[in-house]
Amino acid sequence: MGKVLKYGMVGGGIGAFIGEAHRKAINLDGKASIAAGCFSRSYENTLATGESLGIEKDRLYENYEEMAIKEANREDGIEFVVIVTTNYAHYDACKAFLNAGIPVVCEKPLTVTLKQALELEKLANEKNLQFMVTYVYSGHVTAMNIKEIIAAGEIGEIRTVMGEYPQGWLAFEDVQGNKQGEWRTDPAQSGKTNALGDIGTHIENTVFRMTGLKIKRLLARMDKVVPGRTLDDNSTVMLEYENGSTGVYWASQIAIGHDNGLRIRIYGSKGSISWFQEQPEIFHMAKQDGSLMEIHRGHSTIRQIAAKYTRLPSGHTEGWFEAMGNFYSNYIECLLAQRNDTFTGKMIEYPTLVDGVDGVRFIEACLKSSENGSIWVDF
Amino acid sequence: MGKVLKYGMVGGGIGAFIGEAHRKAINLDGKASIAAGCFSRSYENTLATGESLGIEKDRLYENYEEMAIKEANREDGIEFVVIVTTNYAHYDACKAFLNAGIPVVCEKPLTVTLKQALELEKLANEKNLQFMVTYVYSGHVTAMNIKEIIAAGEIGEIRTVMGEYPQGWLAFEDVQGNKQGEWRTDPAQSGKTNALGDIGTHIENTVFRMTGLKIKRLLARMDKVVPGRTLDDNSTVMLEYENGSTGVYWASQIAIGHDNGLRIRIYGSKGSISWFQEQPEIFHMAKQDGSLMEIHRGHSTIRQIAAKYTRLPSGHTEGWFEAMGNFYSNYIECLLAQRNDTFTGKMIEYPTLVDGVDGVRFIEACLKSSENGSIWVDF
Amino acid sequence: MGKVLKYGMVGGGIGAFIGEAHRKAINLDGKASIAAGCFSRSYENTLATGESLGIEKDRLYENYEEMAIKEANREDGIEFVVIVTTNYAHYDACKAFLNAGIPVVCEKPLTVTLKQALELEKLANEKNLQFMVTYVYSGHVTAMNIKEIIAAGEIGEIRTVMGEYPQGWLAFEDVQGNKQGEWRTDPAQSGKTNALGDIGTHIENTVFRMTGLKIKRLLARMDKVVPGRTLDDNSTVMLEYENGSTGVYWASQIAIGHDNGLRIRIYGSKGSISWFQEQPEIFHMAKQDGSLMEIHRGHSTIRQIAAKYTRLPSGHTEGWFEAMGNFYSNYIECLLAQRNDTFTGKMIEYPTLVDGVDGVRFIEACLKSSENGSIWVDF
Amino acid sequence: MGKVLKYGMVGGGIGAFIGEAHRKAINLDGKASIAAGCFSRSYENTLATGESLGIEKDRLYENYEEMAIKEANREDGIEFVVIVTTNYAHYDACKAFLNAGIPVVCEKPLTVTLKQALELEKLANEKNLQFMVTYVYSGHVTAMNIKEIIAAGEIGEIRTVMGEYPQGWLAFEDVQGNKQGEWRTDPAQSGKTNALGDIGTHIENTVFRMTGLKIKRLLARMDKVVPGRTLDDNSTVMLEYENGSTGVYWASQIAIGHDNGLRIRIYGSKGSISWFQEQPEIFHMAKQDGSLMEIHRGHSTIRQIAAKYTRLPSGHTEGWFEAMGNFYSNYIECLLAQRNDTFTGKMIEYPTLVDGVDGVRFIEACLKSSENGSIWVDF
Repeated sequence: MGKVLKYGMVGGGIGAFIGEAHRKAINLDGKASIAAGCFSRSYENTLATGESLGIEKDRLYENYEEMAIKEANREDGIEFVVIVTTNYAHYDACKAFLNAGIPVVCEKPLTVTLKQALELEKLANEKNLQFMVTYVYSGHVTAMNIKEIIAAGEIGEIRTVMGEYPQGWLAFEDVQGNKQGEWRTDPAQSGKTNALGDIGTHIENTVFRMTGLKIKRLLARMDKVVPGRTLDDNSTVMLEYENGSTGVYWASQIAIGHDNGLRIRIYGSKGSISWFQEQPEIFHMAKQDGSLMEIHRGHSTIRQIAAKYTRLPSGHTEGWFEAMGNFYSNYIECLLAQRNDTFTGKMIEYPTLVDGVDGVRFIEACLKSSENGSIWVDF
Repeated sequence: MGKVLKYGMVGGGIGAFIGEAHRKAINLDGKASIAAGCFSRSYENTLATGESLGIEKDRLYENYEEMAIKEANREDGIEFVVIVTTNYAHYDACKAFLNAGIPVVCEKPLTVTLKQALELEKLANEKNLQFMVTYVYSGHVTAMNIKEIIAAGEIGEIRTVMGEYPQGWLAFEDVQGNKQGEWRTDPAQSGKTNALGDIGTHIENTVFRMTGLKIKRLLARMDKVVPGRTLDDNSTVMLEYENGSTGVYWASQIAIGHDNGLRIRIYGSKGSISWFQEQPEIFHMAKQDGSLMEIHRGHSTIRQIAAKYTRLPSGHTEGWFEAMGNFYSNYIECLLAQRNDTFTGKMIEYPTLVDGVDGVRFIEACLKSSENGSIWVDF
Repeated sequence: MGKVLKYGMVGGGIGAFIGEAHRKAINLDGKASIAAGCFSRSYENTLATGESLGIEKDRLYENYEEMAIKEANREDGIEFVVIVTTNYAHYDACKAFLNAGIPVVCEKPLTVTLKQALELEKLANEKNLQFMVTYVYSGHVTAMNIKEIIAAGEIGEIRTVMGEYPQGWLAFEDVQGNKQGEWRTDPAQSGKTNALGDIGTHIENTVFRMTGLKIKRLLARMDKVVPGRTLDDNSTVMLEYENGSTGVYWASQIAIGHDNGLRIRIYGSKGSISWFQEQPEIFHMAKQDGSLMEIHRGHSTIRQIAAKYTRLPSGHTEGWFEAMGNFYSNYIECLLAQRNDTFTGKMIEYPTLVDGVDGVRFIEACLKSSENGSIWVDF
Repeated sequence: MGKVLKYGMVGGGIGAFIGEAHRKAINLDGKASIAAGCFSRSYENTLATGESLGIEKDRLYENYEEMAIKEANREDGIEFVVIVTTNYAHYDACKAFLNAGIPVVCEKPLTVTLKQALELEKLANEKNLQFMVTYVYSGHVTAMNIKEIIAAGEIGEIRTVMGEYPQGWLAFEDVQGNKQGEWRTDPAQSGKTNALGDIGTHIENTVFRMTGLKIKRLLARMDKVVPGRTLDDNSTVMLEYENGSTGVYWASQIAIGHDNGLRIRIYGSKGSISWFQEQPEIFHMAKQDGSLMEIHRGHSTIRQIAAKYTRLPSGHTEGWFEAMGNFYSNYIECLLAQRNDTFTGKMIEYPTLVDGVDGVRFIEACLKSSENGSIWVDF
């Protein structure tokens, strides 16, 4: 067995954006190559996608249950699987591969109910299988650097957090012809939430990964702004964390003028940090002495873990693929270590089921608050 | 009587920041000159301030009651008065001059109770006296331009508003030696609120002036973050407006890294606008066609009223004094028109008692919500 | 004699931009008030302007020669004069007032020939009269702060300077109806240069004031870009300074998209500084340790002289009028000191005839280079 | 033969930055995989590098001459080669593979003399072999978009261009331990130029690709600023293009505070464009009507060719690897088309020997000017 791992994919057929994006991110470092797939509910699409990727036909499957069993039984079977189906299918697909003993990478949100999420967590733990939930944004080197700076106490105790994720792409009534727009605004495909579940959870997770703050209680207002919409497209959450600090999260798809504006601002007793995912190569830090600094990926000020994931000198831009690639790189490193019995939990820098479960818990708590007139709800 | 009006001032003695700032703003255009004053509770300070300003001694008063009566009785008496005392003294001082028939300019917040504010409104209306409340920030040409753009329907119906006013100057426990820090954090001098009353009301007013939105209900969390603090230093408000749209306001004095970060973002059905008071010469507008524009004061895109207040070509920076000066310019223009019987309400572009009363109502509603566990409160 | 000085003005009649701007800048601090004027070659305009400013009729003059003599002979005569005529008239007007023993403030460029400039310098020195040339931009608090930082050696020895001043307002052939556009592009009114003389000299002066660098030699290309233009509208200068460092200046009026983009970047052996006049409240400094800082007017990092000119707390924007006002404030302070025999040259923080003469020398050297095929010319 | 091409690499052994960067960029899209290499003058390094990449040992070569011949003779031989050696070795290596009939990708600068560059151009044309010179920065989608916008005449005729590429990494005397710093400042390894050859040529090429402007003549000053340096570290070039427009290029390695600041500003008769490679997802365009726009990769305003290379929705950041990957994607597409006889020159969107030759010509002209006292030199 070489150093290049074999992986399979469920979902991500021709026409699907996120599966292709995962494949490119994995390709980047050349540490894993695709060997099997069940890319679509349409077997035809699976065959076409597989052929374009150079996968042998006997490893292109009609359904993921078959794929899980057959790959588990091959000597040269896949060494992890990537689940990039619609949200509703995550749970069953993850379970099938965990039961077959195959490590899983799954897109967020992990599942559509907290119960399912907790089940997967239990199952993965029992099977001792590594499980990554791909909240991509904290994979940026700058985000990792912020995590280390905060953990080192450089900005003191956190007092308040402002998180926002404005987008404008669903500001208009007509989403015809926009495939993603159609399914995201359709309860039959998206469940009980749109904006909050899709992008609000990225705020929740990015804040958690940067700060480690645990939510104590929250109050959510999930508005359906565009006429005719049946799922939230503009949601605000007020939060209290267990350490007594507070936060406000705003996730919107009707904010004309924003592409993908995830922005996290963290205010502590000694300083503050501001990070904006559309400029992921830099962040800003202010200190109690009045200094305002712009810090770049690759500068000497960068910390240990963050430095490890830097591929290019500062000023040579890295982006989304590299952020995702960083997590895959760590995940693969951990899988290899586990195989060599050198693995310890401290090696994990990727988002795990802890992140996945909390993301689903966050959605459920927000729905409970919003459906009851935006009241305070314990987490 | 010439075109240069005579005015008096209550408060604003040597050592007080805001009185001097008003005087400079009035000086700028040379349309009024100071002729009388009661600058301090210390008559000594009043005398010294008056002398430095070249005011004749018989027009330097020990108390404002005397000043109101005597100036009203002089043939060359002051033609308006500027009240820049501490908040607690506003009500009595305003009343004294209104009763004497002298038009009033008063700093915000207008009063410390809604009852007082409503009384002043009634009195000024009865006396038919013009009354300006100096919410300075919407005096910027760009803010006026935004008001006109929104009124013209260019960004469609407003859907949501994000207003924030982060400052960092009260992030630390020790405010000794910072005169303003001392009184602002002292309930005996500031009343029941600090951050919300001082800067939160600027968000409320700036949004109101730009959009005309009326608040329907709100929910406020007024946190005392810095150890030992007895008044709020970090406050968040969720709002619903009468037209069904929503808003979030955040006012903080513990946000290290911010000087005076009043920022208003307004999202409509056809476009959005973003304005930041620390860069008051520009604003950003996005439209439904995907265009993102930076608009500068002085450009051909500027609208009618805004254009009227432009003193310098674009790129020649105007700032705080000019914003304040714009309101004084309009106030004086309206006073002169009233005297010439050419005055109509349409001429008013300055903030009036409507703004002043709503500011106090906003504070009271937020206090009621916050003191009751951050519940929803009708406005 | 009170503390409020009386001043007169030559030029600046109704319709002229810069005279009104000077008057507002002087008004701001209330340290001088206008008492006499010869505002236009049209006496009618002078009378109208004077009346609107409340000047007594016997102090409104048909020509400046008469004004100089009569004001010098009045007991309550003006204590300084402000010359804001067209460039061609500067020399004669300045001379008239210097000869009458009246201190002079003159707009830049000082004169249209170096010979004239040197004469004025000689005359003012002989008469021991203070003379300010209003290169406004280095009057910003941030610009003063930069001067002090560089003088303190914080960025080490200067190695190279990039100065630029792009504007877009003359990018088009048709300047009809744009009064300033008409005379600036007309050699009969503007002399031998347009862009370089009008704005290129601002680069030259701002760099000089910030760094103290003396020009050793230069090479200039003064292009006439817009069809039909007979004066330069896009000029580039390469420079060598006496300390062996280098620079590049670019002044353009055809750079669509720029309003008034004076930007100075200074690179030293230990750090660098970047300043942009359209955001005059901040500047950026980088240090050899890799740190990138944003420094705000009013922060604790601000230095001594700069602090002295701060009128408002940081984040409360100051602009063009305040920059100009700062120089007037210092000029008046120096005049008063001279009268009280407490004056020393160290008190001068305003631009003097040294600045004025060098500005004219710069224009002549650039013309000499450009007219000879853009060759190197000694300064 | 499948769709995944086999490629070889010369240079890029363990420890070399740029070779690894090319491999990751090629990996991204999975259209080519590495099959052979001569990664270093040290065969040991080649073996180690090859093993880490999973290349069979018989395709790891001691020298590139052997590699060229053997690979050309294999039925499964490489289908193109990537040359990422030091600059001095480019010429011989390129020639070896061209002579063997293998298409070549070569890093810039193409060669160290113009004579060599012209020879390679002649040879590639004779052999009808596609040759890409990897000037990476115009591979960004935004750069391609700008090219199309300019070609469509949207900003009118170009009048002046400001190009700059400041870096700060060589601002200090001590470059010990910085491998790249050591060889770049060493004439024995870098030839006659450092800053101009390394980064100045990126300005030259990016401007050429965006605008198509041909240089007519130029004047260069190539300064050696840091004490002890024998090659230029701060270079300025004034240019005239064949259409009569002008330009200024500035390339510096001593500009503390800059990482990799390639910035191109292009001013036309109807508008202007500004592009900054450290924020490669956006650019700014100003139009004659006064509008200032920020344009994002992925927006509806994006043009045809640019759209083709977009991998992620706007706001999901792409960077350096994707820019390089775009050119490889087009190069491979062209190679496949050539094999299928569907190739036409119009398909080429990658930089060719035209770019490579002009880059070397630019260096030679600058050296000639600078060595003769910064005089004007015909191109």
